[in-house]
Amino acid sequence: MTLGQFHKMHGLGNDFVVIDAREYALEIYPVRAAAIANRKNGIGCDQLIVLRSSDKADVKMQIFNADGSEVESCGNATRCVAKLLGDTTSIETEGGMLLGRAIDGGAIVDMGKPRFEWEAIPLAYAMDSLHMPIGWEDLHDPVVVNVGNPHVIFFVDDINNVPLERLGPIIEVDPVFPEKVNVNIAHISGNSIYLRVWERGVGVTLACGTGACATAVAAIRRGLVKGPVDVHLPGGILNIAWEDGGSISMQGPTTYVFSGEADWNNFG
Amino acid sequence: MTLGQFHKMHGLGNDFVVIDAREYALEIYPVRAAAIANRKNGIGCDQLIVLRSSDKADVKMQIFNADGSEVESCGNATRCVAKLLGDTTSIETEGGMLLGRAIDGGAIVDMGKPRFEWEAIPLAYAMDSLHMPIGWEDLHDPVVVNVGNPHVIFFVDDINNVPLERLGPIIEVDPVFPEKVNVNIAHISGNSIYLRVWERGVGVTLACGTGACATAVAAIRRGLVKGPVDVHLPGGILNIAWEDGGSISMQGPTTYVFSGEADWNNFG
Repeated sequence: MTLGQFHKMHGLGNDFVVIDAREYALEIYPVRAAAIANRKNGIGCDQLIVLRSSDKADVKMQIFNADGSEVESCGNATRCVAKLLGDTTSIETEGGMLLGRAIDGGAIVDMGKPRFEWEAIPLAYAMDSLHMPIGWEDLHDPVVVNVGNPHVIFFVDDINNVPLERLGPIIEVDPVFPEKVNVNIAHISGNSIYLRVWERGVGVTLACGTGACATAVAAIRRGLVKGPVDVHLPGGILNIAWEDGGSISMQGPTTYVFSGEADWNNFG
Repeated sequence: MTLGQFHKMHGLGNDFVVIDAREYALEIYPVRAAAIANRKNGIGCDQLIVLRSSDKADVKMQIFNADGSEVESCGNATRCVAKLLGDTTSIETEGGMLLGRAIDGGAIVDMGKPRFEWEAIPLAYAMDSLHMPIGWEDLHDPVVVNVGNPHVIFFVDDINNVPLERLGPIIEVDPVFPEKVNVNIAHISGNSIYLRVWERGVGVTLACGTGACATAVAAIRRGLVKGPVDVHLPGGILNIAWEDGGSISMQGPTTYVFSGEADWNNFG
């Protein structure tokens, strides 16, 4: 028996099992992460979040997709962890060092500085990240940004007119993106951004926190909006602030659904 | 705050949230049941099981489908409740009085006596329940049985050759079944039954406990097998025993996944 507590939370409908393993040894490997994430025979979630003790921060956050693969960054999960841990918390991730603080109804998170150099996205070749000279069908002239994970952003007139379910998986694995890419389709109206996201390794989702950050930064860099901006996703709204040279601030809601206890040896 | 404990269990992949509300008042209405069953923003399950105190039995079991509607019977849930409560337990349901007992790895449940009278299925007209003179495309000459809920059973040569996803919803709502019906497609090989089930109000499922009971009873009545029989469902195997005039005995596995605590006021 390796009985452990967990928390079930969601941010804008993106749902997480959060295991606080700072106080005990818990091995998580892909088969086990996938078994926990399984919605029929497991606990069920989009991503499994494992909190570890950290030398550099208050907590280290590991993020596993439902297929068991580990990813660097997840904005919605970062808000949930910040809400769970309460006061200002430094969070070490594979995508960088983040800083979060619980607020009424949610959390505000410092998502770190975005990167624009082609090697940092990463791209396969040296290219202009603000006007990338490449296109897929009607999608062209994108911005690329790394906000802990790689994003490509297309600004269009009608986000619902883009066949994202078909083009997302094609763009995601294009060789120009050696670590694949998240695909953002954005429309700007005043100081609001309307956004749909194809998440790398996942598909079209209700809300992608890092996509909202990357798209807001791209729109500010292009001079299309002035921050802070409200980013409207199918699952709800995130407020993103950023100034050139600084860190991205993301504010949005979190929901605590239930707490639980499980024997981790029963999973995978 | 109405904090309450719950158990997450499954029987052959048919998964349940079980709330033991014998000791406190908990109102469950369709919107709340559906919110709890929601796999993204709720706890997530095929059926919500609520245990109440009973005047007639050790416990009363209420069963809600994921859409919030209440149903009379669920064989897999009955095994899970019997396993949870341990020793021999009498269980009052809308579908009748059941008796369960935990065994190693699962439970054995007395599912009550099947009914064959046309009014008890119910059918819209007086018809022979052992050879019902009706058919849908290549499906004909079915048996109908009520085992707490209504079932129609077709014996075929190849269960995977029947377009159950298409015919299930048509047969389910045929006016000959005024309370709708569960549709069972069965093949007999020796003393084993291979079974696929379209569950009323749900769809094709991995395993339907009452379908296994109804189909075993139908096959025994037709003289196609001698009980006890192993019923092979996509989710696993149930052992069903029945003799004319007696109660159905169903034996099969259950799995305890995790325990949890939630504030029920947050759901619906």
